[in-house]
Amino acid sequence: RRKVNTKAKFQTIPNGHDKFLTDTFQLIMKEIVQKAGDRSEKVVDWKAPEELRALMDLEPKAVGESHEKLLSRLQDIIKYSVKTGHPHFVNQLFSSLDPYGLAGQIVTDALNTSQYTYETAPVFTLMEETVLKTMRDYIGYTEGNGIFCPGGSISNIMAMNCARFKMFPQTKKYGMFGLPPLVVYTSELAHYSIKKAGYLLGFGDDNVRLVKTDTEGRIIPEDLEKQIQETKDEGLTPFMVVATAGTTVFGAFDPIEKMAEISEKHGLWYHVDGAWGGGVLMSRQHRYLMKGVERADSVTWNPHKLLGVPQQCSCFLTRHVKVLQECHRADAKYLFQKDKFYDTSYDTGDKTFQCGRKVDVLKYWLMWKAKGSEGFEQHINRLFDNTRYMVEQLNKRDDFRMVVEKPDCTNVCFWYIPPSLRNMPEGPEFWDKLHKIAPKVKEGMIRDGTMMITYQPQKDLSNFFRLVLQNSATTYEDMDFFINEIERLGKDL
Amino acid sequence: RRKVNTKAKFQTIPNGHDKFLTDTFQLIMKEIVQKAGDRSEKVVDWKAPEELRALMDLEPKAVGESHEKLLSRLQDIIKYSVKTGHPHFVNQLFSSLDPYGLAGQIVTDALNTSQYTYETAPVFTLMEETVLKTMRDYIGYTEGNGIFCPGGSISNIMAMNCARFKMFPQTKKYGMFGLPPLVVYTSELAHYSIKKAGYLLGFGDDNVRLVKTDTEGRIIPEDLEKQIQETKDEGLTPFMVVATAGTTVFGAFDPIEKMAEISEKHGLWYHVDGAWGGGVLMSRQHRYLMKGVERADSVTWNPHKLLGVPQQCSCFLTRHVKVLQECHRADAKYLFQKDKFYDTSYDTGDKTFQCGRKVDVLKYWLMWKAKGSEGFEQHINRLFDNTRYMVEQLNKRDDFRMVVEKPDCTNVCFWYIPPSLRNMPEGPEFWDKLHKIAPKVKEGMIRDGTMMITYQPQKDLSNFFRLVLQNSATTYEDMDFFINEIERLGKDL
Ligand SMILES: Cc1ncc(COP(=O)(O)O)c(C=O)c1O
Ligand SMILES: Cc1ncc(COP(=O)(O)O)c(C=O)c1O
Repeated sequence: RRKVNTKAKFQTIPNGHDKFLTDTFQLIMKEIVQKAGDRSEKVVDWKAPEELRALMDLEPKAVGESHEKLLSRLQDIIKYSVKTGHPHFVNQLFSSLDPYGLAGQIVTDALNTSQYTYETAPVFTLMEETVLKTMRDYIGYTEGNGIFCPGGSISNIMAMNCARFKMFPQTKKYGMFGLPPLVVYTSELAHYSIKKAGYLLGFGDDNVRLVKTDTEGRIIPEDLEKQIQETKDEGLTPFMVVATAGTTVFGAFDPIEKMAEISEKHGLWYHVDGAWGGGVLMSRQHRYLMKGVERADSVTWNPHKLLGVPQQCSCFLTRHVKVLQECHRADAKYLFQKDKFYDTSYDTGDKTFQCGRKVDVLKYWLMWKAKGSEGFEQHINRLFDNTRYMVEQLNKRDDFRMVVEKPDCTNVCFWYIPPSLRNMPEGPEFWDKLHKIAPKVKEGMIRDGTMMITYQPQKDLSNFFRLVLQNSATTYEDMDFFINEIERLGKDL
Repeated sequence: RRKVNTKAKFQTIPNGHDKFLTDTFQLIMKEIVQKAGDRSEKVVDWKAPEELRALMDLEPKAVGESHEKLLSRLQDIIKYSVKTGHPHFVNQLFSSLDPYGLAGQIVTDALNTSQYTYETAPVFTLMEETVLKTMRDYIGYTEGNGIFCPGGSISNIMAMNCARFKMFPQTKKYGMFGLPPLVVYTSELAHYSIKKAGYLLGFGDDNVRLVKTDTEGRIIPEDLEKQIQETKDEGLTPFMVVATAGTTVFGAFDPIEKMAEISEKHGLWYHVDGAWGGGVLMSRQHRYLMKGVERADSVTWNPHKLLGVPQQCSCFLTRHVKVLQECHRADAKYLFQKDKFYDTSYDTGDKTFQCGRKVDVLKYWLMWKAKGSEGFEQHINRLFDNTRYMVEQLNKRDDFRMVVEKPDCTNVCFWYIPPSLRNMPEGPEFWDKLHKIAPKVKEGMIRDGTMMITYQPQKDLSNFFRLVLQNSATTYEDMDFFINEIERLGKDL
């Protein structure tokens, strides 16, 4: 009989690897966790793709390597990766390195299970149910359902799929072939995932109509009404309205209540994409921004954005109890046996188009237990307070100009105007030149590794900075630093 | 000026939390990692939903809790969660707790980034590219493209979307409304994600046609031909064929080469769903099972299944260089600015319908560097060797009967026939009674926590066990244990 060496490296068992795992843990503590609050560390040690490739030796080989070698590889990976937990990483709608979030991740990883049946994930099934219920309470739904999805784009896809099923249940059986074109409305400044959902579900680009926005970036309700009417006149069928609660760039909140009225009047599915802004619901001070959200048929809300939960953590919530199940069920007999000895209504697998589903709830739940709802509220309030401070400082300086005067959310959008452009008349040449400033400043900050702030054009606006305040450990001093650093990098452009 | 307490619990920064994180790490080491190889530990400490809910106090509260309290909660979570790394967890197409996989996860978590631009994930962008290229080499593609997806279901959705775009590029703009019904063919034993993809993309259940299989569970090519012809006769448009490389229950490999011929002849997109079986490509001994796979237009391959990589890790691979990009691009200006200072062709975001995308490559890559391709090969070979041993043992006993005599993959499907049924004629009554045996044995093993093996009916077959060998630390002794334990639990039924 064959002897089995449980320490053989090819085997998928951790026996004999305590030291390796402990060394890995110590490495992340030393190189990532303990440095996360240290402003003197670089945000990124930038290398261009070809340079980095040459440094890293990424190709898998036939023969395995020693623990020492692997640890030195991990060290390099950390060295050349972006430090998204650094307080000066304000580049995206995510950032931070929350300790409870991280602890929740580590436990999730070690338990390595899949969230489709109660049988394989008893604790996490109940935990998801409880967390989703509590989130629905924040929205104001008295009943409903929900599911964790791998990202807000997929939550938005879920919304479109539920909407279609609810309005045209026969599509599940026959597809969309017989139908007149179905039309979705969303903001011209909506996240591109709405367009992408439209491609994926077979609606097509032309049938995702973009509604005009005002100078703050919020949907103009009259234009929504007008477009719905026009669609009907064209002989097409309106079926879904998507409001954004916190747009990606400006952080604008569409008029949620007003759009609910319009959707109700026309009998359309009303989805609120709160992937970014949804977290404001947890602050008594700021939740007014989402007034009326309980009238939505469904909501996307990403705890991995405004609430600072680690990636990935996104929720799809709906006030319809049965739609998720009805729309997605395939009743696979191998997984959802009805003759199991427990109440199989706890099995969540048929609520989604996924099968295996990563556990994304524990990190969020652990943060919630650690901080309390009050902690999340303080977090949100701090972010808004930092935003107020940042806007004040920018307004004090002549070389900055706000793109949106009063941001709804914690996105601060502004131009930096270097001395060379300060006295130029604001004609096409000025805007052309200004357009080239942000990319250069960005290049400078990345090469120096001092901070990361993104920039983009929007509509007919020249490239501007979008600084996202999502890490509640950032301070007024950090705000001052961002401003001074942009001046340092841009003053000679 | 406000003083900032960087240790305030609400803040999303790990400063001051070293002890908590270290305690969490030690907890997983003690309660999960070090116990993973211990056969005397329970696989599950089973509680029914209501019982577990009462034990856990899952509701989030207003006020946060102490570190001590949180650690004791984590301890409970671990206690009542299924130990999927236990060698006697053979219930699903995933299991194991690979130490390198776990180390890769922990580093991924600490770096907490998103994989959409080179800017936010320089190392992981190149790492994905390299790993996907190497996987394509295993398939035999000389060129192509690919992307990591959150699960095999989503990889299959990706396949259907690429297929539609390639055959009917106008659908991206106009949707599917004008088209004649488009038909997909797959096995009657295919994974239900193909049906679900059909609902989601708007094809509808009726247009996902199920092809008959033989007694081993492999597609009968003649039936595929026949159904394609019938579809044409009905005036509908065939457009995609999906073969399965390792079916979910039987582990059958469809005739991949033969189906390639048929697809080519009719000009259809040919997808091979190797979510489960794809890993055999890494074994020189077993890769013949996928002969002809290089003729497929696309392949789904989940390293998180046969290769033992932790959840989630799934890849979509295609021999078409541009289709992913063309089919999904939305050119969001805020993220994929073309005036960035590096070569933005490295930005992967427009290859998918996701936006934020979790880093799933590092754990796989680290396992690969640690074990080498040879290690993965030994892993696969060991699984097949265990399968052979298991089948031999089952055949030696009178009270077991194989469902599939010679499994293609490492799924072992069999009935246990208790003494009470041993001498019954095999008529409807026998099969009815046998149908009730597996659920009862399953209940017994879960209540005792000794092992987890799933069961299901299939086609007209009564409930049978499906034991999945996916943990290469399982031994011949474990196989004997499974058999003896089923006898112990079932002998009085
Ligand atoms: C408004 C909005 N909706 C949806 C999304 C998509 O979320 P995810 O990146 O998690 O897919 C984003 C991402 O930035 C967003 O800003
Ligand atoms: C053959 C097959 N394809 C696809 C899938 C879906 O993979 P995932 O669970 O990662 O979504 C599975 C899952 O078991 C499968 O067995």
